[in-house]
Amino acid sequence: MTAQEARSAIRRGEWRRPTAGLAPAHAQANLVMLPREHAYDFLLFCQRNPRPCPLLEVTEPGAYEPACARGGDLRTDLPRYRLFRDGALAAELDDLLAVFRDDLVSFLIGCSFSFEAALLDEGLEVRHITEGRNVPMYRTCRSTVPAGPFAGPLVVSMRPFPKAQVASAIAITARVPRVHGAPVHVGDPQALGIADLARPDYGEAVTVRPGEVPLFWPCGVTPQAALVGARLPFALTHAPGYMLVTDIPCGGPFPGDMV
Amino acid sequence: MTAQEARSAIRRGEWRRPTAGLAPAHAQANLVMLPREHAYDFLLFCQRNPRPCPLLEVTEPGAYEPACARGGDLRTDLPRYRLFRDGALAAELDDLLAVFRDDLVSFLIGCSFSFEAALLDEGLEVRHITEGRNVPMYRTCRSTVPAGPFAGPLVVSMRPFPKAQVASAIAITARVPRVHGAPVHVGDPQALGIADLARPDYGEAVTVRPGEVPLFWPCGVTPQAALVGARLPFALTHAPGYMLVTDIPCGGPFPGDMV
Repeated sequence: MTAQEARSAIRRGEWRRPTAGLAPAHAQANLVMLPREHAYDFLLFCQRNPRPCPLLEVTEPGAYEPACARGGDLRTDLPRYRLFRDGALAAELDDLLAVFRDDLVSFLIGCSFSFEAALLDEGLEVRHITEGRNVPMYRTCRSTVPAGPFAGPLVVSMRPFPKAQVASAIAITARVPRVHGAPVHVGDPQALGIADLARPDYGEAVTVRPGEVPLFWPCGVTPQAALVGARLPFALTHAPGYMLVTDIPCGGPFPGDMV
Repeated sequence: MTAQEARSAIRRGEWRRPTAGLAPAHAQANLVMLPREHAYDFLLFCQRNPRPCPLLEVTEPGAYEPACARGGDLRTDLPRYRLFRDGALAAELDDLLAVFRDDLVSFLIGCSFSFEAALLDEGLEVRHITEGRNVPMYRTCRSTVPAGPFAGPLVVSMRPFPKAQVASAIAITARVPRVHGAPVHVGDPQALGIADLARPDYGEAVTVRPGEVPLFWPCGVTPQAALVGARLPFALTHAPGYMLVTDIPCGGPFPGDMV
């Protein structure tokens, strides 16, 4: 499936599931939409936290067709959205047609789903794809670098691998920093303040077999944790795991990589 | 010399020359200072043009001690500054004590001087250091991606190498994208719209010997070309080649590289 076909299927309501494995040749992106008045602080938050927030694109206010998804529409082309009011999750939505505003700036942040095709191509198993679940994501005890009202914990996604494949998984993902790159931690959930892998803060738990090692990647849901503390009157995001499929090839080049 | 010693020497007025080769273990940075009202557009310009504008740090308005240069002072610790009014170069200054304002945000952008120690360590010659000149810099025919009022040509720095060393020079510099990374072009100045290597737009010309190949790296003076078109009432920058010496090791880690 091409990226454009994936976006069209989502727009027509034919795909309402998490997007891992969808149009696997194409990079996926997290979405944050904020009023222009908060855009500087959020852009600065991304600049100061490039591992969880590697920016692929920032739109002009009111624009909804991104350069990285030609013919696309950010209001309809993700399978599920979240609406935040005063820092609280107010609703999950299938599209943004009724709530989009002309003062909204969209931030597209690289997603780790983008390196899963490379893992599969190298013969590694991606557990949440095997099990047909959303990827498990966890709030950690590590803090982001604040910017304006934005602060909060680093959020990570987790994928377990047999010990013998840990080095490969790290090497493969380290090649693509624009979609989060290498893990931030390998092995001990407690070191990140994660009490129980079976109870993720976002997404769904997956099986971790005896002898397997959990690997933790910085996650583009980190801004959603920061939105809670920032208590903005109005903000929109993707629902965790329900991403934008971009036209960008998974291995790059990413916007700005070449001049 | 340590980074702190270099900054102190500059602050005392004991170093008024370009900073290539100064405290060579430490990364150097370009400086742009703008009123807060223009900071969003400039931050977006950097986000959209990461090759010439790899951001190392953005300060709070009115702050002048950066996290990457502890005990430092952005108003005094660079050997020469430029003051722009309405897009025109209005003055070159030894310090900013008389012109600094509380609404100024400072942008620190990685400088290619930061990879010159690695080139020297690998046995390559850096011509402008050998010849005791400022690095030559050129406006090119390549355009940056605009953001708000900021637009303009890509500016590049040039270093010539014997053919046999071209691959090494590229490989060594590609390792450090936060200080510009690999060249954007190798060989033909005409391909970048550079008519005459002997007449740089910034800095000084260096000798290019028969059989040598000019290599062109994206340069943090690119924002100065964008400032001309943006016609901001007031902006401050470093003078090309007269950089901030940071505490960051030349090879990193750079701010944000680790969470």
